[in-house]
Amino acid sequence: MTAMRERPIGVFDSGLGGLTAVRELRRLLPHEDIVYFGDTGRVPYGTRGVDTIIRYAKQDIAFLLEQKVKFVMAACGTVSSTLPAEFSAALPVGFTGVVQCTAQAAAAATKTGRIGIIGTPATIASRSYEAALRALRSDVQITAQSCPLFVPLVENGYFNADNEVTRLVAEDYLKPLQKAEVDTLILGCTHYPLIAPILAKVMGRQVALIDSGRETALCTAALLREADLLRNDGHIGTAQYFVSDSTESFATLSGWFLGEYAGGDVTRISVDHYPADGGISQ
Amino acid sequence: MTAMRERPIGVFDSGLGGLTAVRELRRLLPHEDIVYFGDTGRVPYGTRGVDTIIRYAKQDIAFLLEQKVKFVMAACGTVSSTLPAEFSAALPVGFTGVVQCTAQAAAAATKTGRIGIIGTPATIASRSYEAALRALRSDVQITAQSCPLFVPLVENGYFNADNEVTRLVAEDYLKPLQKAEVDTLILGCTHYPLIAPILAKVMGRQVALIDSGRETALCTAALLREADLLRNDGHIGTAQYFVSDSTESFATLSGWFLGEYAGGDVTRISVDHYPADGGISQ
Repeated sequence: MTAMRERPIGVFDSGLGGLTAVRELRRLLPHEDIVYFGDTGRVPYGTRGVDTIIRYAKQDIAFLLEQKVKFVMAACGTVSSTLPAEFSAALPVGFTGVVQCTAQAAAAATKTGRIGIIGTPATIASRSYEAALRALRSDVQITAQSCPLFVPLVENGYFNADNEVTRLVAEDYLKPLQKAEVDTLILGCTHYPLIAPILAKVMGRQVALIDSGRETALCTAALLREADLLRNDGHIGTAQYFVSDSTESFATLSGWFLGEYAGGDVTRISVDHYPADGGISQ
Repeated sequence: MTAMRERPIGVFDSGLGGLTAVRELRRLLPHEDIVYFGDTGRVPYGTRGVDTIIRYAKQDIAFLLEQKVKFVMAACGTVSSTLPAEFSAALPVGFTGVVQCTAQAAAAATKTGRIGIIGTPATIASRSYEAALRALRSDVQITAQSCPLFVPLVENGYFNADNEVTRLVAEDYLKPLQKAEVDTLILGCTHYPLIAPILAKVMGRQVALIDSGRETALCTAALLREADLLRNDGHIGTAQYFVSDSTESFATLSGWFLGEYAGGDVTRISVDHYPADGGISQ
C-alpha cells in the first residue's frame, strides 16, 4: 500500500477550466503528483439544474477516490457552490471547493467593501460567495452577475485580449458591477483567468481581480501542509489527466489552460457508471 | 393496444433546438400527437466525440420507443450526421434525420450549384451534408463551416436581429461562404432558424436559406402519408415534452423556439439509465 503522503492530489472540474487551478498547484507544489478529471462528456455544469450538478459531481468524486487520491479539490465554481457541505465532510479524504478560499482572498483585498462576483448561472443562483463573504465581513456590499457565455467563448478560443466579441459580451455582463463601483472582482469560474486581460480592461486597472483557481491552489497547499500530507522525498511531480469525452480536443485546450505546466498522459473514462452517491456510504 | 396510426410522433434533439422542427410539424400536421425529448442534461452534443454522441442518441431513441411512438425524427444535425444508417434501419418504426431531407431541398434551390453548409463541429466534421448533396448532384461546389458558438449564443438569448455580438460572430464564421459566393445556405442545426435574420443580413438577400427543421418536418409528413400512418379521426394533436435537466428553463426557451405552437406539459426523466444500444436487439 502506498503511504498516504505519496498519493496524488485529485482535482476535478466539469470540463477543462479547472486546469487553471492545476497550473497553480504544479507551480506551488512541484513535488506532488496530480490526477485531474474533466467531465468533458457532460460539460457545462453551470447552466444545469442543482440536482443534476450534484449527481454529476458525486460521480466525479467517486472516480477520484478510486484513484486513491489523498485530497480532493473541486476546481469548479459550479460544483463548489452546489455540493452539500455534509457530503464533502463525509469524504474519507480532505476536500476543498473554490468558494471559501476565494472569498477569504476577496475579503482581504477589498478596501471599500464593494465586491463583485461573476460566475456561471448555477454559481450565481446559489449565492454561495455571498454567504461566505458575509460570514467573513458583515459590512460588504455585493454585486453578483451570471455570465453564461464566458465558458463557451473561452472554450472556442475567443479569449485574446483584443477579441471584440468577448469584449462586447464582457461590457454587457460587467455593467452592473461598474455601476456598483466594486473595487474587487471575484472570477468565480476557473475558465475566467484566460479572459482576465479583457475583464481588467473593461473594469479598469483600479479593480483587483481574484482568481479562484489560484486562491484554491494556495488553500490546498496550506491544508496539506497542516495535515502533514506533503511529500518530502524529492520526488518530481507528475500529472495524469482523465476526461469523459474524446481525448482529441484535450491537446488544444490543455495547452491554453496549462501553458508550460502541461505534460502527462490523457485517458478517457466512462464516468456515468460511477455511483451517484460518490461511492461513499453515508 | 393503441392502433399504430394513433400513436404519437417521436422527436428528439440534444437540447431544445429541435423544437423549431416541432413547430413546423405542429403547423403541418395539426391532428398528430407529438412526444419530444430534449437531452438538456447533456447538451450540447455538437462539440463532443463521435462515440459519445452515438451512445447518447441511442439512449434518447430507447426512451422514445418506450413511449410507443410510430415514427422517430432526429431533429438534430449532430445526431443525424453521426448515427450509423444500419442502426436507424434496424429500428422497429420509421426514422428520419435532418440531413437527407435538407440536402434535397438545397439541391433543388441552388441555381449556381454553389452551396454553403453551417453546423456544429461534429456535423461539419462528419461531412454528412456533402455526401448527401454529391449523391444528388455531382456538379455541386460545397463550402462547409463549423459554428460552435451559435448554439450557446441562441440558448442565451443573443438572437435578436440587431444583436451586435452574434452579428460579429456570424461575420467571422460566414466569411468563407461569402468568398465562395454560395447562392444557397443550409442551416444544418435546428437552433439556427432563430438567427436566420442575422444570417440573411450578413449573407445578403440573394442567398436562399434552407431550414433543416422545416425541411425535415415536410419529409416526415410525406413519409407518414406514404406509410398510411397519419391520423384521420379529427383528433386535435397534443404535445408532450420531456427533458433530462430541470424543467425550469424549459418555459423560456420553449417559448423562443415554439412560438404560438407551444403548449403541452414538460416532464423530467433520467436518460442515462436507458440502454446504450437503443433498446433494440440487433
